[in-house]
Amino acid sequence: MSAEQVSRFPVVDLADMPEDLRQRVGAIAEKSGFVPNVFRALAHRPAELRAFLDYHDALMERSDGLSKAERELVVVASSGANHCTYCIVAHGAILRVRAKDPELADRVASNPWQARLDQRKRAIVDLALALTHDSAKFSDTDMAAARKAGLSDDEIWDVGNITAFFAMSNRIAHLTELRPNGEFYSMGR
Amino acid sequence: MSAEQVSRFPVVDLADMPEDLRQRVGAIAEKSGFVPNVFRALAHRPAELRAFLDYHDALMERSDGLSKAERELVVVASSGANHCTYCIVAHGAILRVRAKDPELADRVASNPWQARLDQRKRAIVDLALALTHDSAKFSDTDMAAARKAGLSDDEIWDVGNITAFFAMSNRIAHLTELRPNGEFYSMGR
Amino acid sequence: MSAEQVSRFPVVDLADMPEDLRQRVGAIAEKSGFVPNVFRALAHRPAELRAFLDYHDALMERSDGLSKAERELVVVASSGANHCTYCIVAHGAILRVRAKDPELADRVASNPWQARLDQRKRAIVDLALALTHDSAKFSDTDMAAARKAGLSDDEIWDVGNITAFFAMSNRIAHLTELRPNGEFYSMGR
Amino acid sequence: MSAEQVSRFPVVDLADMPEDLRQRVGAIAEKSGFVPNVFRALAHRPAELRAFLDYHDALMERSDGLSKAERELVVVASSGANHCTYCIVAHGAILRVRAKDPELADRVASNPWQARLDQRKRAIVDLALALTHDSAKFSDTDMAAARKAGLSDDEIWDVGNITAFFAMSNRIAHLTELRPNGEFYSMGR
Amino acid sequence: MSAEQVSRFPVVDLADMPEDLRQRVGAIAEKSGFVPNVFRALAHRPAELRAFLDYHDALMERSDGLSKAERELVVVASSGANHCTYCIVAHGAILRVRAKDPELADRVASNPWQARLDQRKRAIVDLALALTHDSAKFSDTDMAAARKAGLSDDEIWDVGNITAFFAMSNRIAHLTELRPNGEFYSMGR
Amino acid sequence: MSAEQVSRFPVVDLADMPEDLRQRVGAIAEKSGFVPNVFRALAHRPAELRAFLDYHDALMERSDGLSKAERELVVVASSGANHCTYCIVAHGAILRVRAKDPELADRVASNPWQARLDQRKRAIVDLALALTHDSAKFSDTDMAAARKAGLSDDEIWDVGNITAFFAMSNRIAHLTELRPNGEFYSMGR
Repeated sequence: MSAEQVSRFPVVDLADMPEDLRQRVGAIAEKSGFVPNVFRALAHRPAELRAFLDYHDALMERSDGLSKAERELVVVASSGANHCTYCIVAHGAILRVRAKDPELADRVASNPWQARLDQRKRAIVDLALALTHDSAKFSDTDMAAARKAGLSDDEIWDVGNITAFFAMSNRIAHLTELRPNGEFYSMGR
Repeated sequence: MSAEQVSRFPVVDLADMPEDLRQRVGAIAEKSGFVPNVFRALAHRPAELRAFLDYHDALMERSDGLSKAERELVVVASSGANHCTYCIVAHGAILRVRAKDPELADRVASNPWQARLDQRKRAIVDLALALTHDSAKFSDTDMAAARKAGLSDDEIWDVGNITAFFAMSNRIAHLTELRPNGEFYSMGR
Repeated sequence: MSAEQVSRFPVVDLADMPEDLRQRVGAIAEKSGFVPNVFRALAHRPAELRAFLDYHDALMERSDGLSKAERELVVVASSGANHCTYCIVAHGAILRVRAKDPELADRVASNPWQARLDQRKRAIVDLALALTHDSAKFSDTDMAAARKAGLSDDEIWDVGNITAFFAMSNRIAHLTELRPNGEFYSMGR
Repeated sequence: MSAEQVSRFPVVDLADMPEDLRQRVGAIAEKSGFVPNVFRALAHRPAELRAFLDYHDALMERSDGLSKAERELVVVASSGANHCTYCIVAHGAILRVRAKDPELADRVASNPWQARLDQRKRAIVDLALALTHDSAKFSDTDMAAARKAGLSDDEIWDVGNITAFFAMSNRIAHLTELRPNGEFYSMGR
Repeated sequence: MSAEQVSRFPVVDLADMPEDLRQRVGAIAEKSGFVPNVFRALAHRPAELRAFLDYHDALMERSDGLSKAERELVVVASSGANHCTYCIVAHGAILRVRAKDPELADRVASNPWQARLDQRKRAIVDLALALTHDSAKFSDTDMAAARKAGLSDDEIWDVGNITAFFAMSNRIAHLTELRPNGEFYSMGR
Repeated sequence: MSAEQVSRFPVVDLADMPEDLRQRVGAIAEKSGFVPNVFRALAHRPAELRAFLDYHDALMERSDGLSKAERELVVVASSGANHCTYCIVAHGAILRVRAKDPELADRVASNPWQARLDQRKRAIVDLALALTHDSAKFSDTDMAAARKAGLSDDEIWDVGNITAFFAMSNRIAHLTELRPNGEFYSMGR
């Protein structure tokens, strides 16, 4: 694989995607100004990409509970702990934009355990970290800590399931050696 | 949570699911003779359950490449390494049925690293394990070993993405402390 | 080693064991209906097998303190954490029989950290886990937690020494790649 | 500690440093346009800061062997593996400038194991990683791999000792919860 | 527990042991000049101490295969990796005496992975380490490496079972916080 | 490398060192009766050795705060956790001398987590261990525990920075496979 390749597996350009995916991914591309590589890498399996988009939207675009920035915070913290370059770079960019903070993403991605955060954000990140590694040890103590910090069970579900979804995404990115689009690196700085 | 509870979060009985999910989960229930608890636990978020089912089917019901039993082997190996009770018990049962082997699932779930397997199955399990923990270290060496054992890139994609999907499922099961249905324990023995 | 081999090292059939071991192992075989493979694998070193049986009985057949089922619970929890197929399968069977519970062994072996147990059983399992991995960090805090849950020092000794004995057994099983007898898989289900 | 604090311990402004340090740190500040926080945090122990600067310069400003960019690559790789926010952000900036590459630092810091690099850079990073964690296992095999990739023993010494020096720096940053200057985040992008 | 206590559990002096144990442990005490604390700590469970002594002697006093010094080398390497103070100090002393080498024990106990040893000793130590931690991953590759270095299967059994026995002993020492006799520290220096 | 070699890299005898280093290292040699190998191994890079000595003295010879024996305790505990033979053997010797205790060094080096210590020494060792491994998780909780045990912030700085300095030294010793002088093994026993 050359340094410029996007994935270890076949990549599909927007124009070559099935109609429904071309529209859906096209709408995202129009908004960002480019086609995020994750969609080009997943598109050679259209059924998987459709389910990925549906699941992503169900978790990340939900209007109740966590704010959009808080959802991205979960992604950046767990992807940082997983050392996933694509998700750190791409969702780090989105977090900078959503949180209107040029430092938060780098601070959380580089060290999600020690990053200084307010009590609610710290509880969100701690919950994400408890499920990122050694999730078999997740316990009532983790639940109690999250509730004590004011998270509702509905919000705990969100944090836990976003963490789980990105445990999947991070592994897809590691398998494919997915390359972040160059645009993400400087977005929102 | 009492020992009999199915999940830490609200559970929806089949009769109370939205029409499309009632039909879809109902068809599975008819086939197995009971409603697997994972669907009851995810159903309080219908959009997430729909995407979960679509993604699951795209990966597990695909006709090309890996056999059905091999797909379950990936699930049992990675869930064993993750210590996920629900997936070990439920997919262990399915693996016993699909592989027509009463011992394979317990051998692989208890020790996926050392279980004596033929060369193809060993390569499949090794690939799954390389992405279960420390996936950030996944490398060309892992790809080469899988290819050398005769796996096509299409099959490698399947193993990797099934592993990734169950990295998600395992974490949902850990978060919810999902209880396997009693029926799974003895199925296929 | 073929999939059917019992051990990486020489195996001795009951009929070929020295008289005292033939009687002793024969009595066990009569009770279970078959000769557990661990005895056939250890018998090529009769002095070691004698000491193994004596030590095992001193810890597992002791009448004071822990119940028989509780002793097996320690074995299954620590063997689960150690990923020892032989001990999980064989002692899982014994635990099902002794606890008259068809699910407990699989729940504890697959995830000893999260398995929902009553307070006494949880304290027993926590103590076993504290000595299974990273035993160098065993501390007064572990002792205090066990005592607080109502375990006497005599019971703590039992849990700790059974855990230690199976730290040995698990490693013998891993060295020999010890194969569980087929009968164990379905016993007590 | 508020989100804005620079260190858990007393911080000394440039104007309040002893004359020799004021000159030395002042020269750096003039070049970068600001006083890097690490010097303000170490300055309340002038003897330690003097030795830190001497050691840093002996390793990082040496003219033989590794290029300046390669020295920064070692710092970013090992600091990424150590999750050290200050060193990732500050030396990531310097690496962007020295390597004239806006992506390299983020790729290496987020996942030093998988980052796609040419053979020489990969050997440098592998050597750094071998000494960052589990350095007690450093072996002739690590030496041989580095030599095979063309590194001289003099260069191996440099990589190893820079890694060692930043094993120290990372821990000082973790102890003090050292905050990177805001300027570093966008430098060289 | 005071710094001077021998064990967290009841300790039995030689004079108070059952006749057979008093003779057996007495013989050891006569040879060393003192009663090693491990026997005083185990003696409150005479059946366990008898089995411990039998097992120990079957493995450590066997005349075939490994030399006495090599058997102690296994103990010191695995106890070093397990951070077991009692076994490092007591068996370090025995190793110094048996190997007639005042440095070997400290070198192996402090860093069993990197200690410079001849090929046979290195193979013995590598085998012991493969079974000390993560023994579930013990594989044909470990067997092949040991055989390639010239170890017979009989010797491999010895190394493996001594390692397993001290996996037990180390945990008993950690549970009891067993204190080494002062005499061991300077013996054989 | 033969068993007798001092380092994997060039070694400089006292007589061949630059004048200032010959005087400085000579003074140490006069006091101990031999030239500690670490200085001979670092001397082929005089600028690095000068900075090493300055940094070492700034941290280890400081008159305020921790006692000399306490400073050595930090070194032995963190070097034990890092499995660094040179630092365990050399600083173990110095600790025996400074603490006038023939057992403390071996107890702490072999198991820094469980060694029975008074409250102040235990807090010092816990702090050192928190920064030796996984220092990215160092938190306000670690700071609070140290303060609660009576350590001033000035003393916490000392413990943390000595730990950091020996995180560096340990890695230099692992890279060079630095051999302790024979004299250290028996000193102070």
